Amino acid sequence: MISQTEIRLDTNGRGTYDITSDVQAAVRDAGISLGLCNVFIRHTSASLMLCENADPAVLRDLETFMSRTVPDGDPMFTHTAEGPDDMPAHVRSILTQSDLNLPVRDGRCDLGTWQGVYLWEHRTAPHRRTVTVTINGD
Amino acid sequence: MISQTEIRLDTNGRGTYDITSDVQAAVRDAGISLGLCNVFIRHTSASLMLCENADPAVLRDLETFMSRTVPDGDPMFTHTAEGPDDMPAHVRSILTQSDLNLPVRDGRCDLGTWQGVYLWEHRTAPHRRTVTVTINGD
Amino acid sequence: MISQTEIRLDTNGRGTYDITSDVQAAVRDAGISLGLCNVFIRHTSASLMLCENADPAVLRDLETFMSRTVPDGDPMFTHTAEGPDDMPAHVRSILTQSDLNLPVRDGRCDLGTWQGVYLWEHRTAPHRRTVTVTINGD
Repeated sequence: MISQTEIRLDTNGRGTYDITSDVQAAVRDAGISLGLCNVFIRHTSASLMLCENADPAVLRDLETFMSRTVPDGDPMFTHTAEGPDDMPAHVRSILTQSDLNLPVRDGRCDLGTWQGVYLWEHRTAPHRRTVTVTINGD
Repeated sequence: MISQTEIRLDTNGRGTYDITSDVQAAVRDAGISLGLCNVFIRHTSASLMLCENADPAVLRDLETFMSRTVPDGDPMFTHTAEGPDDMPAHVRSILTQSDLNLPVRDGRCDLGTWQGVYLWEHRTAPHRRTVTVTINGD
Repeated sequence: MISQTEIRLDTNGRGTYDITSDVQAAVRDAGISLGLCNVFIRHTSASLMLCENADPAVLRDLETFMSRTVPDGDPMFTHTAEGPDDMPAHVRSILTQSDLNLPVRDGRCDLGTWQGVYLWEHRTAPHRRTVTVTINGD
């Protein structure tokens, strides 16, 4: 049985947003017990990741790492029409994930104890983001 | 219903190749309405990505970023049998994707407006590349 | 038909571990011919990758690259409770994969000739790791 739904999120700009409970709700609503849950983001300047969900410093350090590795306003970038964070947002998306595929068991995504599902907004301005969730199982 | 097909591409060497229409054709041929499309590359020196499909400068800037982050001929690399771009090609593949999993709705991959599916050839010489497409749905 | 199993691995600390034969065994046991195999790691300080399986120097060079790109003990990191390799392990996981989705054909993962499935332990100390394998097909 396959079903599909959407999660919509208005971000406040660059940062990480925990969507674990939204994803779990989508799986619960799908009514399957065993299978897979695909989480897909319909954008190229925001991305998805599974990350440690206990210490907020982990998320801050990830942002620090990305800001250093892909600096806003780096003169090597030519695609700057939308500002200094435009091209870095695409690079950050390429280096992380556009889709996650999570095992479902007993009617929920069977994540590890410390795993959360995060949307990572890479643009500095607020954006409306859409995530498609497709659940496939019995 | 599950079906599988292949996309074959002869690259002209390093660069990005838009395979969105090939993937959409595979989904159309599969005859499903709702489900998922898995795109898998059978190589470790070329990879896949979802990327902004409007401004070609984005793809050029991505190449610039990767060339700087994983320089050809970097003396830290010991696996150099096939030349200075050999090991960087493996690193670039690891940092991007070997498989993409795209939601299917109304008989096509339901991508965002600005998302295209790209094969990224990381070797400087031309290569024949094979991508397996597996479609699963109703 | 969907089935699910687990692979458990005791690592000796940082390094790559070939789990290709474990994944192929799981697919064989599932008894499907055509479909997909999802490999999912239940941790945020170890990850998965598809990598060249012929020359061990490739895996060593990947480790060298990651150690240089995400150095242990980097003073930019504040999440250091578990030691200098703690936060780098999370960053390395984010830059690689938590899940792989492999096409199944003729009852096995239809990988390219040079592709192996690896678990990459990013912590320096030994850890017990669990990988969930979900097989979906006919």
